[in-house]
Amino acid sequence: MTDLTRLDVVELGALIAAKHVSPVEVTDAFLARIDQANAGLNAFVTVTPEAARATAKAAETEIQSGSYRGPLHGIPLGHKDLYATAGVRTTGGSRVLADNVPTEDSTVAALLAAAGTVMLGKLNTHEFAYGPTNESSMFGPTRNPWNTDRITGGSSGGSGAAVAAGLVPVASGSDTGGSIRMPAACCGLTGLKPTYGRVSRAGILPLCWSMDHAGPLARSAMDAAIFLGAIAGHDPRDAASADRPVPDYPAALTGDIRGLRVGIPRRYFFDQAQGQVVSLVDAALAELAAMGAELVEVDIPHIEASAAAAMAIYISEATAYHDDTLDDRADLYTEQVRAFLEIGDQMLAKDYLHAQRYRTLLGTEVARIMADVDVLATPGIAHTATPLGQEMVDINGTEEAVFGAILRNTEPFDLTGQPAVVIPCGLAEDGMPASIQFAGRPFDEATVLNVAHAYQQATDWHRKRPDY
Amino acid sequence: MTDLTRLDVVELGALIAAKHVSPVEVTDAFLARIDQANAGLNAFVTVTPEAARATAKAAETEIQSGSYRGPLHGIPLGHKDLYATAGVRTTGGSRVLADNVPTEDSTVAALLAAAGTVMLGKLNTHEFAYGPTNESSMFGPTRNPWNTDRITGGSSGGSGAAVAAGLVPVASGSDTGGSIRMPAACCGLTGLKPTYGRVSRAGILPLCWSMDHAGPLARSAMDAAIFLGAIAGHDPRDAASADRPVPDYPAALTGDIRGLRVGIPRRYFFDQAQGQVVSLVDAALAELAAMGAELVEVDIPHIEASAAAAMAIYISEATAYHDDTLDDRADLYTEQVRAFLEIGDQMLAKDYLHAQRYRTLLGTEVARIMADVDVLATPGIAHTATPLGQEMVDINGTEEAVFGAILRNTEPFDLTGQPAVVIPCGLAEDGMPASIQFAGRPFDEATVLNVAHAYQQATDWHRKRPDY
Repeated sequence: MTDLTRLDVVELGALIAAKHVSPVEVTDAFLARIDQANAGLNAFVTVTPEAARATAKAAETEIQSGSYRGPLHGIPLGHKDLYATAGVRTTGGSRVLADNVPTEDSTVAALLAAAGTVMLGKLNTHEFAYGPTNESSMFGPTRNPWNTDRITGGSSGGSGAAVAAGLVPVASGSDTGGSIRMPAACCGLTGLKPTYGRVSRAGILPLCWSMDHAGPLARSAMDAAIFLGAIAGHDPRDAASADRPVPDYPAALTGDIRGLRVGIPRRYFFDQAQGQVVSLVDAALAELAAMGAELVEVDIPHIEASAAAAMAIYISEATAYHDDTLDDRADLYTEQVRAFLEIGDQMLAKDYLHAQRYRTLLGTEVARIMADVDVLATPGIAHTATPLGQEMVDINGTEEAVFGAILRNTEPFDLTGQPAVVIPCGLAEDGMPASIQFAGRPFDEATVLNVAHAYQQATDWHRKRPDY
Repeated sequence: MTDLTRLDVVELGALIAAKHVSPVEVTDAFLARIDQANAGLNAFVTVTPEAARATAKAAETEIQSGSYRGPLHGIPLGHKDLYATAGVRTTGGSRVLADNVPTEDSTVAALLAAAGTVMLGKLNTHEFAYGPTNESSMFGPTRNPWNTDRITGGSSGGSGAAVAAGLVPVASGSDTGGSIRMPAACCGLTGLKPTYGRVSRAGILPLCWSMDHAGPLARSAMDAAIFLGAIAGHDPRDAASADRPVPDYPAALTGDIRGLRVGIPRRYFFDQAQGQVVSLVDAALAELAAMGAELVEVDIPHIEASAAAAMAIYISEATAYHDDTLDDRADLYTEQVRAFLEIGDQMLAKDYLHAQRYRTLLGTEVARIMADVDVLATPGIAHTATPLGQEMVDINGTEEAVFGAILRNTEPFDLTGQPAVVIPCGLAEDGMPASIQFAGRPFDEATVLNVAHAYQQATDWHRKRPDY
């Protein structure tokens, strides 16, 4: 008998559509896997087995009666605990919201429910999605199934661990500085940050509304494309939501990348990454070239200022959001997050605006470069997943704060808002996944997913699973 | 012989197109009027007669040879001294830029030159467009041709005085809190603030980039429509520029407003305006109703917070822009503007962001209301032009700072970014023009201009000229 929890969305969907397995069997298999594996990983913080079984049963009935909704019908998933879920506790990983039970689904959760998915529960996140590596969740840190002493990357680390360990085949995440793509990099997954405005954030707790993005952590680019197709589109409940048509993403994944122009920004993105990560990324690039892609060296002016600008924007917007709560209930925040918010409390408007002006400049420079290349390719993160609690990382002989290094390659594309996907491209000497990132033109998720798909058709790295 | 300086763009254009007058004659007539009248008004701060005559001569030759560019060909105009003009001093009214001679035209100036207009020179503005009433221009205050002891309204007051007194038939302005519409109100003109993003600000000195708008001060809605048609459109040099098609505005001005739904927000906009201004506005509304428009009472929730929010946004963005200059050359700013910038220097990011969040809320409320009405109608400003140097104004027995009162009705639509036009609707007891404002849906300039045009077809207030 096939272990259903080893399969991806496409494979499960094919079995369900063909009525070879029922959504109830699939759900039971993943619930059993959660029972077995979650305690050691701390990925799920809330599991909703009864509701899940009822939803699965309804899907089964519907499918039996001939009403098949499409490739997500009967597929289990989990939502980052930042996503409002009607009737299910939504904490944002914070004691501030320990008892928060929304009455309404976030738009993304509602769309995925309408697509027929079966929610198994909620996934661990750093407190209010703050920080890539800290252990600020009220539930404690999530552990990486590749090595439980390592971080999963944040803040969608619960989603990363759950998908990597087969507790769910796919999960939602959110990305402000890299919080979908860092867990994808650390856990060997496909993590997609769509274009800013492509997916509604309504009902998702904000970290920094001008940089927050919602998207999937998945096992393949094709799964991410299916997930994106279900959640993309205009939503008047999100002021930044774009009113643009939604293409057929899965249909766009032809795997044909002949003539595709891939820009390689060595400075900043490669030069400050661990040598063994760069080697694996270069091997992946050679693979793309062999498939007909054209590699072009590019340089993004002023890119080195992106970390400082992003930080100024996060802490200002986060503090504006938490202003009232911080006055009333400061003691409920962890010390780490409270410290950030207190720095934000003193940020000057002019410094926030200098950061926003830099952001416009960066966007202009990147748009100029992308008039000539279809995607940019970089290492996903500059290193492999670091040990839990370790604050420094060695990058080619230089000790650097993990906090800075891990965000370096993902953050620029939160500033520019362009779509970016991270996929695994090998295992490093420490046994942890290395990753490559593709960033595309605004609203051209199809191309970044297609180059990821082409690579995944030609290689097997995305099928590697941790022995957990 | 007709006094050409009494004519509007449509009338002058008809004479030029028919070759009854040449652009050279037209230009000479307006230059003579500038010679005669500018000293007392201080509207033009730079006049460029040689360049103007050369441009007019070139237009004449072109038209004689059968190459007529359209309704602006051969039409004289002036640009607010905030607009970069290649080879012509552009000061922003400030000693900081006393010797600034741009090498390139602003996008709007270039588009108007391409349309065949003849620039006669540059028009006075408050220092860096800061403030609706202050006398911060390095050239001293502009005087109102209706009464030279009165303000013209700022900051496009030079444009207002010049068009009202017939020094040019039309002029450019810019509007951040009302700086096109306040001079239109004070000088009895048609002033259009287009939708945010409709007209490029590239090459225009910024006051507050998230609220700056460029547009015309004109003698009629039809003239404003012609001017808008020449300057609207996408410009990659302005990050906020919208990439949307430009309709044929003059063709949209049918004058038919049967069935048009006009929302009347009495609270805030009317209740705090001088009684005689409200009476004239009510008479104008009755005129619209007689033409078939439907008047609907509406209320905009939270509107009373708009002044504080707008102020927080101006002073923050202006200070970010002037940050470096203020460090080096603080003494060159007037005391008034320096004081504003120094307050801005201390603004906290969270307060700026609270203001921006309010702005989103206000936009949502107004959009909700405008799902049911085509335009909103309000008094243009709450009073008539006040005496120069007078800081307080009497509004129905209550003394109020002019600074607050004059901005009250225009500022909300800079926050929401929707299009708004101000037109004259009578003379008050003090002999000064009163005005009505129409605000429309985003990118629906055609409707606000059409209701203004309908009113101007039925009445003659826009043809009244001061005896200066």
